[in-house]
Amino acid sequence: MVVELVSVGTELLLGNILNTNIQYLSEQCAMLGLSVYHQVIVGDNRIRLAEALRMALGRSDVVILGGGLGPTEDDLTKEVCAEVMGFALKEDAHTHKRIEEYFKGSIYKEITSNNWKQAMVPEGAIVLDNDNGTAPGLILEKDDKRVILLPGPPAELHPMFKKQVFPYLKKLQPEIIRSQMIKICGVGESQVEDKLLDLIDQQKNPTIATYAKTGEVHLRITARAESEEEAKKLIKPVIKEIRSRFGDFIYSVREEETLEMAVVKLLLKYGLTVTTVESCTGGLLAGRIVNVPGASEVFREGFITYSNKAKRKYLDVSKSTLKKYGAVSEQTAKEMATGGVFAADCDACVAVTGIAGPDGGTEEKPVGLVYIAAYVKKKVTVKEYRFKGDRNKVREQAVVKALDLLRRSILENYR
Amino acid sequence: MVVELVSVGTELLLGNILNTNIQYLSEQCAMLGLSVYHQVIVGDNRIRLAEALRMALGRSDVVILGGGLGPTEDDLTKEVCAEVMGFALKEDAHTHKRIEEYFKGSIYKEITSNNWKQAMVPEGAIVLDNDNGTAPGLILEKDDKRVILLPGPPAELHPMFKKQVFPYLKKLQPEIIRSQMIKICGVGESQVEDKLLDLIDQQKNPTIATYAKTGEVHLRITARAESEEEAKKLIKPVIKEIRSRFGDFIYSVREEETLEMAVVKLLLKYGLTVTTVESCTGGLLAGRIVNVPGASEVFREGFITYSNKAKRKYLDVSKSTLKKYGAVSEQTAKEMATGGVFAADCDACVAVTGIAGPDGGTEEKPVGLVYIAAYVKKKVTVKEYRFKGDRNKVREQAVVKALDLLRRSILENYR
Repeated sequence: MVVELVSVGTELLLGNILNTNIQYLSEQCAMLGLSVYHQVIVGDNRIRLAEALRMALGRSDVVILGGGLGPTEDDLTKEVCAEVMGFALKEDAHTHKRIEEYFKGSIYKEITSNNWKQAMVPEGAIVLDNDNGTAPGLILEKDDKRVILLPGPPAELHPMFKKQVFPYLKKLQPEIIRSQMIKICGVGESQVEDKLLDLIDQQKNPTIATYAKTGEVHLRITARAESEEEAKKLIKPVIKEIRSRFGDFIYSVREEETLEMAVVKLLLKYGLTVTTVESCTGGLLAGRIVNVPGASEVFREGFITYSNKAKRKYLDVSKSTLKKYGAVSEQTAKEMATGGVFAADCDACVAVTGIAGPDGGTEEKPVGLVYIAAYVKKKVTVKEYRFKGDRNKVREQAVVKALDLLRRSILENYR
Repeated sequence: MVVELVSVGTELLLGNILNTNIQYLSEQCAMLGLSVYHQVIVGDNRIRLAEALRMALGRSDVVILGGGLGPTEDDLTKEVCAEVMGFALKEDAHTHKRIEEYFKGSIYKEITSNNWKQAMVPEGAIVLDNDNGTAPGLILEKDDKRVILLPGPPAELHPMFKKQVFPYLKKLQPEIIRSQMIKICGVGESQVEDKLLDLIDQQKNPTIATYAKTGEVHLRITARAESEEEAKKLIKPVIKEIRSRFGDFIYSVREEETLEMAVVKLLLKYGLTVTTVESCTGGLLAGRIVNVPGASEVFREGFITYSNKAKRKYLDVSKSTLKKYGAVSEQTAKEMATGGVFAADCDACVAVTGIAGPDGGTEEKPVGLVYIAAYVKKKVTVKEYRFKGDRNKVREQAVVKALDLLRRSILENYR
């Protein structure tokens, strides 16, 4: 079955935002074994949107549109789709009620008239409830063609797709497609590909696809078969082979498990509490840990010690260490991690100190230099990293490496 | 003049990589005052690529293609373009020499035969030297249409565009385009639209476009004119009018200025230092502040007090307050903000405590309930929010509101 993806929004044509939705939807379609041959992006323009939709309907079985469902004048995806497919718009009582409830208890006191536009739906459409906004998604079916309309904001599109569209599309697909994720941290993408070259060269069913994320590489093993059982059987030996090649670099084989979830799981498994001490990452590392529901079992407090004074006050980093080696040094990182464990009275600590830039770099200590220390079972491991990229990218990579160092230190010392 | 962007690559259709090129090229075209009405993505497929190119040539003046210029079998953008436009391919001696030089001193000992494929160019094409790879870019001109071929890797595409394609396109364009951003926080997208309905209805030149971000709304005012001066003159009264309608809800009129930058700028302006105290946001708020280069001038330390014990230990939140009102309450937020100021010995503090979910909610205190307190000039302002969405979304919104509460508290007390 062929799917065409259409993104709607003048902001995309102006380059104001990055089109992450289209990557997400493409990946999901690949997981479902659906073929995507075209991605098309048009602006908030009635004529060009109608043209794009007509063309997509002519060459594809399913058209997924993202964007243009909001309450403003610009938003006309629903209206154009209804017109092209010959459906009248009428108010959906259920959606009207949901919008009412959405605004109840929100910070906005009044519901402006344009919000009610979002309760109008093409007759006969399947309405997809939006748990994260007011614009519902829609599925329109006609003459063996399907048009699926999704809201543009990723925080609305993703959960709606996952919960409501994914199962809908899965039912349309006679073949069983099963895919399994392998998540790797600590090995670069080209190294991962190099190590898998023979497997990738002979791949047919299952296939192996690599996805580079910040500091991580994800592998997706996808098999097509007539039954779930058969697909599983095809995947199993490939997973086993990849496990044997990457060992502990693999932190998860579960789609929904993030690196921070894997870390929290390990901490829970060994009954450990952890604290974080951050300089250049300024709270982002703790933020990732707290992102895991139930993190309070293992994480109670964290330190953001941006200044030297704060490093001394809370963590007892010695004045002479700071003076002799500097705030960004192996020695300071080590004392930060040790100090964190004692200050927070817990079992483990991960500390980050570095130069995120754009200023502050020297020839000896350039922008991108980051020290990460993990204190686990009375042992401190310190690693030096030299990250490329701007301030934000340096900090993001540091957070990933810090989580991974903590993970591997726990494995080494407790397993 | 109308430009159409075409990305070529099956990896894009599989969602393996994010299409950052298309955002980059769109933004560059907008800066040049060129209109982009379509972005199209096709795979490494001869028939569909030829179709896409024919269609683009039919409706646009300039077609910019990215990707498919490499040495492998898959790469066929150049061949397809030459065929569709009726140009023969012949070897370009200059490019042949450049490829030879590129491999000299590289890690690859021999130049494989497929590399020479990259020296073949359509007759009469303008060749764009590639300083960062082996595939040259190309400009093909025919019957008032222009087709520009660029290599796919961003590290090759960006510099080639900037250095060679930007000046080429600029010469084609007589009109000037200028756009100005207005960034608003504290008013919802539909409310902003409502307040601007009359302006949006009569808009022609300049135009007003709204963009919803998490907790923010951005407006882009775009004017076309014959000179930079004239464009500025068209924009100025619109900005003034919008300022009069939104006042302090506008935090910036600069494209590159984020909310945290505006906050840090205000702190610097009034010579204030700040600290953060976070429960459910777990460091993300401090992370946003530290994201601003030079934040160390105003921010030295931050507290992540996830447990009640940590709230008492570092911030001196009273046991009876926690017991009587709970950790998520107006009273606790207030004591957290005040405690932060004294513990960190600074001028201002913003504190966040809330229930991010998915667990921990009750009927009285549901998931999404967040209290934010700002301590500024010995006064504490506390606000209650009820956010929608999942754990991550609740936390993201809380961070934005916390930054904004701090910003407005400073304005109120110091201006």
